[in-house]
Amino acid sequence: MKELVFGHKNPDTDAIVAAKAYSYLQNKLGADTEAVALGEPNEETQFVLNYFNEPAPRVIKTASNEVDAVMLIDHNEAQQSVDDIKDVQVTHVVDHHRIANFETSAPLYYHAEPLGCSSTIILKEFKQHGVEVPANIAGMMLSAIISDTLLLKSPTTTDEDVAAVKELAKIAGVDYEKYGLDMLKAGTNLASKSDETLISQDAKSFDMNGTQVRVDQINTVDLDEVFDREDGLRAAIEKQNKENGYDLFLLMVTNILNSDTRLLVVGEPQSVVEQAFGKKLENNKMDLPGVVSRKKQIVPPLEAAFNA
Amino acid sequence: MKELVFGHKNPDTDAIVAAKAYSYLQNKLGADTEAVALGEPNEETQFVLNYFNEPAPRVIKTASNEVDAVMLIDHNEAQQSVDDIKDVQVTHVVDHHRIANFETSAPLYYHAEPLGCSSTIILKEFKQHGVEVPANIAGMMLSAIISDTLLLKSPTTTDEDVAAVKELAKIAGVDYEKYGLDMLKAGTNLASKSDETLISQDAKSFDMNGTQVRVDQINTVDLDEVFDREDGLRAAIEKQNKENGYDLFLLMVTNILNSDTRLLVVGEPQSVVEQAFGKKLENNKMDLPGVVSRKKQIVPPLEAAFNA
Repeated sequence: MKELVFGHKNPDTDAIVAAKAYSYLQNKLGADTEAVALGEPNEETQFVLNYFNEPAPRVIKTASNEVDAVMLIDHNEAQQSVDDIKDVQVTHVVDHHRIANFETSAPLYYHAEPLGCSSTIILKEFKQHGVEVPANIAGMMLSAIISDTLLLKSPTTTDEDVAAVKELAKIAGVDYEKYGLDMLKAGTNLASKSDETLISQDAKSFDMNGTQVRVDQINTVDLDEVFDREDGLRAAIEKQNKENGYDLFLLMVTNILNSDTRLLVVGEPQSVVEQAFGKKLENNKMDLPGVVSRKKQIVPPLEAAFNA
Repeated sequence: MKELVFGHKNPDTDAIVAAKAYSYLQNKLGADTEAVALGEPNEETQFVLNYFNEPAPRVIKTASNEVDAVMLIDHNEAQQSVDDIKDVQVTHVVDHHRIANFETSAPLYYHAEPLGCSSTIILKEFKQHGVEVPANIAGMMLSAIISDTLLLKSPTTTDEDVAAVKELAKIAGVDYEKYGLDMLKAGTNLASKSDETLISQDAKSFDMNGTQVRVDQINTVDLDEVFDREDGLRAAIEKQNKENGYDLFLLMVTNILNSDTRLLVVGEPQSVVEQAFGKKLENNKMDLPGVVSRKKQIVPPLEAAFNA
């Protein structure tokens, strides 16, 4: 019986290419799967797909009209998944995030590890099953690891991620440092994007002790390029908060060259953000030097502050 | 930093010995762990520990007074875990059940597969890491698989469980069919046990759409031996329901020789049980031929009926 394999909403590079890699592996093992996506590839991902000559996956809105069962990649929380996730059976999850708002009624295959990227975990599964990674899939997987770890500089990076990038680079035949910087820069072409796109493109929702929190991240090589547009971004966030019921919106603007983040916070309670990071907001903003990881450096302290 | 490794409350053989096996593996890989338990071993498990000359693990009531982090084996649902699970970090889970009522704030290692027993999954991890299984640990792990699958007859049994038992039997040097039946019989010594013990020993709690459901399973070689005591068992269940706030209690009495179950249902709503299994209760009882697995044959249809 056919199953769909997909990453989270607002897909980043890992969400798209890890789903493609896992679907390839599952089909080699005898399953009948198709990799799809919950949104169009962003510019970074499009750069990757073009480079390795791979088509973008088909975008779906719902799953239960097509299949009874699905495999989730790079996410598990229901609000990050397909809208009708409750109407299908989840048979497999491969992820590197916390587990929350996820429930099944039957046993399943679940493989999570606290590594920098889902693609690193999927490389381990290729090896466990003795399946060879084709060159173009290796290239996509190393792109996902570079994307998730900002060229292996994020504190989420583990030794296994570094080893995986080196191994995959050999198979794909690329100079990963040069290629990686080109890829990251392709994703920071901000001038061409609307305020609405910038605050949506990599945004994820979290329920924190009853408060609906939205966290988006923009990568850039120049913070001013983003904050010159602050008024427009704020207005767009206020509109989204109202329309979607978000209480609190954190926009992480991350400089990928020096690994610092400036936070723009819209909504309430602002005081919890100040508690979480131990410093004051000025005009709804704070600088967080050395912070690049939403998962490791933003969500856990924020969640702790909400539960305090 | 030391971590505790434990299985679920009301520990069965897998909950006790898989925790011991996983702690052994983790320590070989460089971690500092101790296998503990959330209750005393039952008679079947005691038979196993005696046979392979292993001590029973220390019983704990809380974890946060000793450690900051724990590893969960053979369970994930909070109500089946240590009482203060919210006060410690879960770093690892190895399990073969559904995922529900489980949430972390940080990424973790989670390895679940829809196999018959946690010990089968742990054997895979020994192999993945190239760690040899000592003979007495092999003997305990094969005991857990035989216990969970009722000598490989339960519908939860997979090819991997069968292969694991055969492989572990070689390492442990036992005739698993003869040994397994002796072990299962050691666990069915019902005459010596009080009604309270019988309805508690292998009981698990489930939150089903807001209804607190308790499901216990008694293995026997003679259904009459149990139902001769029906009045006493009912009274004990009614008392427990009242004291612990269970709405609905299902007692599975399973004949391990022919793989049939008779259900005794105390509490409300009884009608949902009838919907779940498509037959009427008579005097709070129904026969379910071929049903031996709580996880695969009782919980999913019951949960579906509660959500219908």
